[in-house]
Amino acid sequence: MSNPTAAMLVIGDEILSGRTRDSNMHFLANEFTRHGIDLREVRVVSDDHAAIVAAVQALSAAYDHVVTSGGIGPTHDDITAPCVAEAFGVPITVRDDARALLQAHYDRTGSELNEARLRMARIPDGATLIENPVSIAPGFSLQNVHVMAGVPSVFQAMVASLLPSLTGGAPILSQTLRVMRGEGDVAQPLGALAEEFNDLQFGSYPFQKDGIYGTNLVVRGSDGARLDAAMTRLNALFTDAAA
Amino acid sequence: MSNPTAAMLVIGDEILSGRTRDSNMHFLANEFTRHGIDLREVRVVSDDHAAIVAAVQALSAAYDHVVTSGGIGPTHDDITAPCVAEAFGVPITVRDDARALLQAHYDRTGSELNEARLRMARIPDGATLIENPVSIAPGFSLQNVHVMAGVPSVFQAMVASLLPSLTGGAPILSQTLRVMRGEGDVAQPLGALAEEFNDLQFGSYPFQKDGIYGTNLVVRGSDGARLDAAMTRLNALFTDAAA
Repeated sequence: MSNPTAAMLVIGDEILSGRTRDSNMHFLANEFTRHGIDLREVRVVSDDHAAIVAAVQALSAAYDHVVTSGGIGPTHDDITAPCVAEAFGVPITVRDDARALLQAHYDRTGSELNEARLRMARIPDGATLIENPVSIAPGFSLQNVHVMAGVPSVFQAMVASLLPSLTGGAPILSQTLRVMRGEGDVAQPLGALAEEFNDLQFGSYPFQKDGIYGTNLVVRGSDGARLDAAMTRLNALFTDAAA
Repeated sequence: MSNPTAAMLVIGDEILSGRTRDSNMHFLANEFTRHGIDLREVRVVSDDHAAIVAAVQALSAAYDHVVTSGGIGPTHDDITAPCVAEAFGVPITVRDDARALLQAHYDRTGSELNEARLRMARIPDGATLIENPVSIAPGFSLQNVHVMAGVPSVFQAMVASLLPSLTGGAPILSQTLRVMRGEGDVAQPLGALAEEFNDLQFGSYPFQKDGIYGTNLVVRGSDGARLDAAMTRLNALFTDAAA
């Protein structure tokens, strides 16, 4: 039985222009790994209507789950919600429960629920709200697409709200062996072992320290016993080079 | 005249599993912005043959340039070079000039140019080498796809080798106004200004500091005079809220 698959869609000119360094991808990757959901692909697109609609359609057809990040605020460039609605061919309107959440929040903070802020209550027909304990304006799930904010603290809170409702698989475990040998020296024995343990993933990540080349050998899989067996063999292969 | 467009393809299980936080995307975004190349899309895929071939084909057809990062080392999971060759339907073989570079390097460092390391001299027919002053094993450009290493120091050096050969456009400039108002309060006037200056891009990025909400308003474009004009108007709109 294999784990559910997922993709992420990051929406935002600010990432592609280099103004902001995205951190949501790294956060989600770790959460999904722990939850046994296999993150297979990430796309970053700009605040462009056609690009967002096309990416939502392609990813939602190809994977069990899609998480989007960004573009659900109150400004003119926040177009994710209507794009997701269009991708699935459903109408989008201001929804009473979402409006009530915002009204209560702005009453409490003494701000006005103006037309711009009301945009954040637009929810596609048939969607389920995702709770936002940080800044209240909700995300939503429409079919297998989960729409969340781009601000990292809000994104993280929404992931925490969503995760319990997603069926995960066995957590994906990993073990690392650090060896003081160049990648070119470990490649052959590592490749042979990877072929033998073809139910596991083997990765090698070179590094350089004080002019010496080393490699981190990483084995990943969801069966702890198999992982242990592979690590025993890996240790034996590189017993003279462990660091 | 608009700037050339580009996409990036990041190849690596280690990014999608959360083991490594990618930094090459942020670096390339800034370099392209400075060079007047419009980075429109980034995709991250795993070390999977079919996924890499499909992404290379889709992105090279849609954009002027594609930069790939990762998967060109000596190990079994380094499959980017043959995947790019397959995407364009050309053969790939160990090439004499690439082999000579590696031979000289390993002679100098006292390592053996073994079979694994020789994989790094496989270059698709018709490709141009990209110089790697850090660890010698070259990248390559095949048609509009530029194949580079994933290790950040090597990736950055290869980008520096490649950039002078790419025709850029006018650098994309940006100016920021920081205002101590929530995004919902700036949205309406900002949207109106964005419609008036529709040759520029307007972004708004909320933040929270000491419990107070503020927003960074960013205007981007390649015409400095237009940018100045927009900033003058923006300043006048929010003169009471500038921080």
